[in-house]
Amino acid sequence: MNRRDFGGLVAGTAVAGIAGTGIAADEKAVVQVSEDQLPVMHTGRRPEIAMLIYPGLTIMDMLGPHTALAPACNVHLVWKNSRLLKSDTGVVLQPSMSLADCPKELDAIFVGGGPGQLEVMKDAEVLRFMADRGSRAKWVTSVCTGSLILGAAGLLKGYKATSHWAAHEALAMFGATPVAARVVTDRNRVTGGGVTAGIDFGLTLLASMLSEDIAKLSQLGMEYDPAPPFDAGSPKKAGEKITKMALDWMAPVMAKMVPACAAAAAEMNRYAPKP
Amino acid sequence: MNRRDFGGLVAGTAVAGIAGTGIAADEKAVVQVSEDQLPVMHTGRRPEIAMLIYPGLTIMDMLGPHTALAPACNVHLVWKNSRLLKSDTGVVLQPSMSLADCPKELDAIFVGGGPGQLEVMKDAEVLRFMADRGSRAKWVTSVCTGSLILGAAGLLKGYKATSHWAAHEALAMFGATPVAARVVTDRNRVTGGGVTAGIDFGLTLLASMLSEDIAKLSQLGMEYDPAPPFDAGSPKKAGEKITKMALDWMAPVMAKMVPACAAAAAEMNRYAPKP
Repeated sequence: MNRRDFGGLVAGTAVAGIAGTGIAADEKAVVQVSEDQLPVMHTGRRPEIAMLIYPGLTIMDMLGPHTALAPACNVHLVWKNSRLLKSDTGVVLQPSMSLADCPKELDAIFVGGGPGQLEVMKDAEVLRFMADRGSRAKWVTSVCTGSLILGAAGLLKGYKATSHWAAHEALAMFGATPVAARVVTDRNRVTGGGVTAGIDFGLTLLASMLSEDIAKLSQLGMEYDPAPPFDAGSPKKAGEKITKMALDWMAPVMAKMVPACAAAAAEMNRYAPKP
Repeated sequence: MNRRDFGGLVAGTAVAGIAGTGIAADEKAVVQVSEDQLPVMHTGRRPEIAMLIYPGLTIMDMLGPHTALAPACNVHLVWKNSRLLKSDTGVVLQPSMSLADCPKELDAIFVGGGPGQLEVMKDAEVLRFMADRGSRAKWVTSVCTGSLILGAAGLLKGYKATSHWAAHEALAMFGATPVAARVVTDRNRVTGGGVTAGIDFGLTLLASMLSEDIAKLSQLGMEYDPAPPFDAGSPKKAGEKITKMALDWMAPVMAKMVPACAAAAAEMNRYAPKP
């Protein structure tokens, strides 16, 4: 039986599980054989990375770094269970590993932001997980308002960090120093700016973990030679009118974000790793 | 019962289906209420967009445009059925609508590329679907090697188009004229370059469908102010050594792509919409 035939068989029958993840796959799952996957880019030791995902995550916060890193690293999408969850824009995806099964020693722990983080920032189980893995991981990382989740887990106290432009100042509540930059590295904390900054963040982290050549290879593979049709990627460049529109658009989420951060900041020392 | 309570109830019990999609959701699915979703950006008429997804798609090809478009458009992820499918980098996601349920009249039909397109390019059911919706959609679109799927459905004959840099020349097999650009618009065909070009493509399409202000708003929301840490996003910029590494890395897929395109090109007139 060749790999293609095996793929067909898997697609037509019950699937026992997703290999190596420790969670049961849905019976209807089509688990694709490697023939449908991207070839492996890097055959040396592959860094182990856990990305926390959750209902209402901004999926692009995760997928930018995932696309940069996955061809050369083992990337796990971790959550409490294997239930399907829906992203900010409605994409339905499945975690690949439970929090309990996540390796204790990681090369990197990562979290992105999203409307759903309001729940995550008050979830003791998740914050304990982040604090535990974050206390041991070689790199403690985020994109967008994911940095506020790191903050809630007590992982940014005394560190420089960044976030989405609209949530920048909230970092200070967690004892972090907000820095306006696309990617901020302070010792082993690496944080990226809003949403699409995750691509720049992912390439930066890949270079730190493996090599500049591997990072450039990933960049060329995903043809990351950006040419935005408009120059409106920051409030300054977008101008007053568009920035006002953006603040109005995001208002329902942001109105809840500030009190949620204040409440989380009051609790962060419960989770913060002991120095 | 407020919306939050309803969300909790949905998460804890069987879910009848994904609203408005016509497909049954998995019993274990956590269908999130709108509180966890991104607020709506645009309250006027929302363009209807169908994005074809399939096992082994390059998920970033789809998610770049999805992130740009979804806050202002109704975007459906369409496939033959609602089974979970695995992307090129291992992300497991679920289609939101079947091909049969997909609206006949679309503002845009879209397809991205990926290792799994080798199967798609010889799948009569899918190619008939693409040709049918493509013959009527206001915009016929792709990112990366998704343009070769448009080609296989007979939708690019006589059009200028682009693709991933490594697959550029294959467009000619389908009667298209390859153009080396990030986004190529020829009448109602809009094609993007490799993978991350989908963000530039998505913003371009959004401006064409709605307005430049809406596109700028989307750009600011996702903080698309790119600052790649390296300048290696095209073969010319990456240089000979990295380009050679990239070609070696992609070789297992590309070795099958050229004969697959030749076979698909020989059949494309079976699908091509009648002028």
